[in-house]
Amino acid sequence: MSDLHNDNIIIDGLIISKWSRSVFEAMRDGGLTAVNCTCCVWDDFRGVMENIAQWKQWFSEHDDILLQVFTTDDIRRAKAEGKVGVILGWQNTSGIEDQIGFLKVFKDLGVGVMQLTYNTQNLSGSGCWETHDGGLSGFGREVIDEMNRVGILLDLSHVGPKTSEDAILYSKKPVAFTHCVPNGLKDFPRNKSDDLLRLIVDKGGFAGFAT
Amino acid sequence: MSDLHNDNIIIDGLIISKWSRSVFEAMRDGGLTAVNCTCCVWDDFRGVMENIAQWKQWFSEHDDILLQVFTTDDIRRAKAEGKVGVILGWQNTSGIEDQIGFLKVFKDLGVGVMQLTYNTQNLSGSGCWETHDGGLSGFGREVIDEMNRVGILLDLSHVGPKTSEDAILYSKKPVAFTHCVPNGLKDFPRNKSDDLLRLIVDKGGFAGFAT
Repeated sequence: MSDLHNDNIIIDGLIISKWSRSVFEAMRDGGLTAVNCTCCVWDDFRGVMENIAQWKQWFSEHDDILLQVFTTDDIRRAKAEGKVGVILGWQNTSGIEDQIGFLKVFKDLGVGVMQLTYNTQNLSGSGCWETHDGGLSGFGREVIDEMNRVGILLDLSHVGPKTSEDAILYSKKPVAFTHCVPNGLKDFPRNKSDDLLRLIVDKGGFAGFAT
Repeated sequence: MSDLHNDNIIIDGLIISKWSRSVFEAMRDGGLTAVNCTCCVWDDFRGVMENIAQWKQWFSEHDDILLQVFTTDDIRRAKAEGKVGVILGWQNTSGIEDQIGFLKVFKDLGVGVMQLTYNTQNLSGSGCWETHDGGLSGFGREVIDEMNRVGILLDLSHVGPKTSEDAILYSKKPVAFTHCVPNGLKDFPRNKSDDLLRLIVDKGGFAGFAT
C-alpha cells in the first residue's frame, strides 16, 4: 500500500482518458478519493448528453469502484466506502450552446466543474492559444452569473490571460486553475503568469499544478 | 378553506396547461399536494430539454409555491411546507428518440412518469387512435426494462389497447392509467375496457379517472 492510502481526502483536479474499467481501477488503486473527469471538450449539447448517458451507465456497471459526486458529502462517502468519487467536468462551455438555462440542467446531472473556454475562442471568451484575447464576453458574464447561482466551479486552466483576469475579477465565487503550470517554470501560452496565480488565490480561488 | 385542505396527500395524476404563476397558485389553492405535470407531448430530445430547463427556472422563480419531486419524501415535504410538489411527466417517449441511455438522464432530472405512446405510433408501440395496434415493439420492451430499472412509472393512458395489454403483462413493476375514462361509461377509442382496467389493477397498478 502506498502512503496515499491514509485518512487524507485526495482530489485529482482533472483527468481526461479513454475510460475503461482498468482506468477506474487505477484511479482507485492510486488512492484517489475523487476526480474531476472530463466529459466535454469540443462537444455540442447533444454530444455531451450522450457522454453523460454513457457515464450514468458506467456508474451502474462499475458501482463497486465508482460513485457519482453531487455534493461534498458524496466525496466523504466515497472515502468511507473505498470508492472513487467522480465529479463530471467540462473543459469547454460549448456543451450549453447558447442556452444559459442548460447550466442548471447539467448541474442536476452532476456536472460540478466547467472550464470557460478550451484553447480557442467560444461564445464566452478566448482560449490560451488565440493570438488576441478580447476578454470575457457579455454572454460569458451571464454564464458566470448562472454558474455562481447554481454552484458550478469555474475552471480557467486553458483560458486566455485577459479572459482569465476578467473572469477572476467578475465571479462572485472563488474560481480555479484545476490543472496548470506556472510561467516561471516554462514560458508558454498555456502556462500561468505569477500575477494571475496571485490574483486567483487572493480572490479565494484554487490552483492545481501539473508538473 | 375547502375540505381538500386537510391531512390527506392528494396527487393529481396529470395536468397539462399553459403554465404560469396563476396556474401554480390555483394548484396550491385547490389543495393539491403533488401533480404529474406534462413536459413532453410531441417533443424531440432537444425540445424536451428546453422544456425542462424552463421548469428548472420556474422552480427557482416560484419556490414559495413549487417544489420539485424526485422521491416520495419530497411529496411529504411539499405537504409539510404547504407547497405543490411537481413530478415532471411525459405523455410520449418521443423525447428519448432512439437512445435507451437517455432514460436515466431524464430520471436524474426529475422525470418520474412517462406515457409510452401519445395517440399515434412511435418506436415503442401504438397509440389509441391508430387504426391497427401492432402491440409492444422490441424497442418498447427495452424502454420498459430501463424504466423499471431506473424507477420511472409507465403510463398507458393514451396507449392503444393491444400495446397496453402487452405492456401491462411485460412490465416487472406496476404500471398506470394516470388519466382515463372507462369504456363502460362511453365507448370511445381513447377509453379503457373493463378487461384492461381489471388487468392493470390485478398486476398491482393504478387507474386514475377523468370524469
